[in-house]
Amino acid sequence: MRRGMENLRVVLVGTRNPLNLGAVARAMSNFGAAHLRVVQPYEKAFREAVSAVGASAVLQNAEEFATVAAAVADCWLVVGTTSVGNRELQHPLRSLEKAGAVLRRGMAKGKVALLFGSEKWGLSNESLSHCHWLVRIPTREEHRSMNLGQAAAVCLYEISRGKRGADSKTEEKRSAAARMETVERIGAALLPVLIKSGYTGARKRELAEEKLRRMLRRMAMSEGDAEVLLGMVRKIGWWMEER
Amino acid sequence: MRRGMENLRVVLVGTRNPLNLGAVARAMSNFGAAHLRVVQPYEKAFREAVSAVGASAVLQNAEEFATVAAAVADCWLVVGTTSVGNRELQHPLRSLEKAGAVLRRGMAKGKVALLFGSEKWGLSNESLSHCHWLVRIPTREEHRSMNLGQAAAVCLYEISRGKRGADSKTEEKRSAAARMETVERIGAALLPVLIKSGYTGARKRELAEEKLRRMLRRMAMSEGDAEVLLGMVRKIGWWMEER
Repeated sequence: MRRGMENLRVVLVGTRNPLNLGAVARAMSNFGAAHLRVVQPYEKAFREAVSAVGASAVLQNAEEFATVAAAVADCWLVVGTTSVGNRELQHPLRSLEKAGAVLRRGMAKGKVALLFGSEKWGLSNESLSHCHWLVRIPTREEHRSMNLGQAAAVCLYEISRGKRGADSKTEEKRSAAARMETVERIGAALLPVLIKSGYTGARKRELAEEKLRRMLRRMAMSEGDAEVLLGMVRKIGWWMEER
Repeated sequence: MRRGMENLRVVLVGTRNPLNLGAVARAMSNFGAAHLRVVQPYEKAFREAVSAVGASAVLQNAEEFATVAAAVADCWLVVGTTSVGNRELQHPLRSLEKAGAVLRRGMAKGKVALLFGSEKWGLSNESLSHCHWLVRIPTREEHRSMNLGQAAAVCLYEISRGKRGADSKTEEKRSAAARMETVERIGAALLPVLIKSGYTGARKRELAEEKLRRMLRRMAMSEGDAEVLLGMVRKIGWWMEER
């Protein structure tokens, strides 16, 4: 589990489809949330999902509750998810982007519940009444309703933002930019090749040299790539010289 | 479609499961991306998904391609997705959080392709060789691999960040970046030159082709420069052919 995510409780209310239960559990595992709670799932779907071959640890450790009240009893903050704009807004509504930071701060203080409603109806008014506020996933107005597993993935991605770290070492392992010395050598090797091949007229040598220099500099090469390119051009040049 | 998202091409390579095709299309619709391209999908899965009751407009308008090269030919930036940390990092790797802004800027310049590999294998080395860089979805090290539909949802959520609501209309047409079609032609013209000159052994042709493709994509060329370079390589190639 990721540091900071141990206080998150993902609460699925009235979920019908076992595939969705599995998908939510998978996204939780991907983003480091371990604690799944289910409220009145369709019993058959829940059994099926938990006993599926390859059911994740998250799913196998899911806790079942009869009511939303029981499922969020030990949490100090309860947040519902919706893709709907404003259902007679009884609740403050935050965009997911803004909610992420608030939820992270909340998780630093104690247990936080994030509720997802059923595939068909979303969260009922009764369920919503347990929520302090709602988070809206910013889908298009013309197609608001998300698949449950995808909605959970997007929320968990946003909530776990900034909680990562450990694996940033390998990222952005970009190589050093080419030294101008190397780039200049490429031009020097390429020019006679262009002349010999007839691409550049010998009398236009100077102009061609300048154009080539500018062009090679516009290509933002790494030192490694520049050296490879230099090797290629030289080899071609030697081959042509022998003819 | 959301303003700013019209230049995104979501490219699914070798997708097997019709449910995943549907899920990706749904997330695209949720986040305002309209253009889906599929490369060698499992034919049956693709037909099934497209003809499913309630198949979205995104899916019904999906374009089918035989190769990755054809699917990204009109794009100037090609980005692959991976949940793997570093597969002998041939490519620069960006975290999704950082990639989002880069992709948004890229989409302001021209068409951008975002590639997703098959459920089982991800993107092959051949597919990767068409990519300028890779984006890694920041999943936990212990459970990296995401469901395809969820991975797409998370990427699209991040990419459409800030594109919501009133957005800057300034779709700057900057000095247009090279289309992949042109870059691919440079590689195709250069490879025989490298072989004939002895730089590349004929038996290592395939490996050399991939390396070359990656290198040419790392160089951020404009369309103008790419065309000049193509002209040079062709001229050299013709000269050498006659010897």
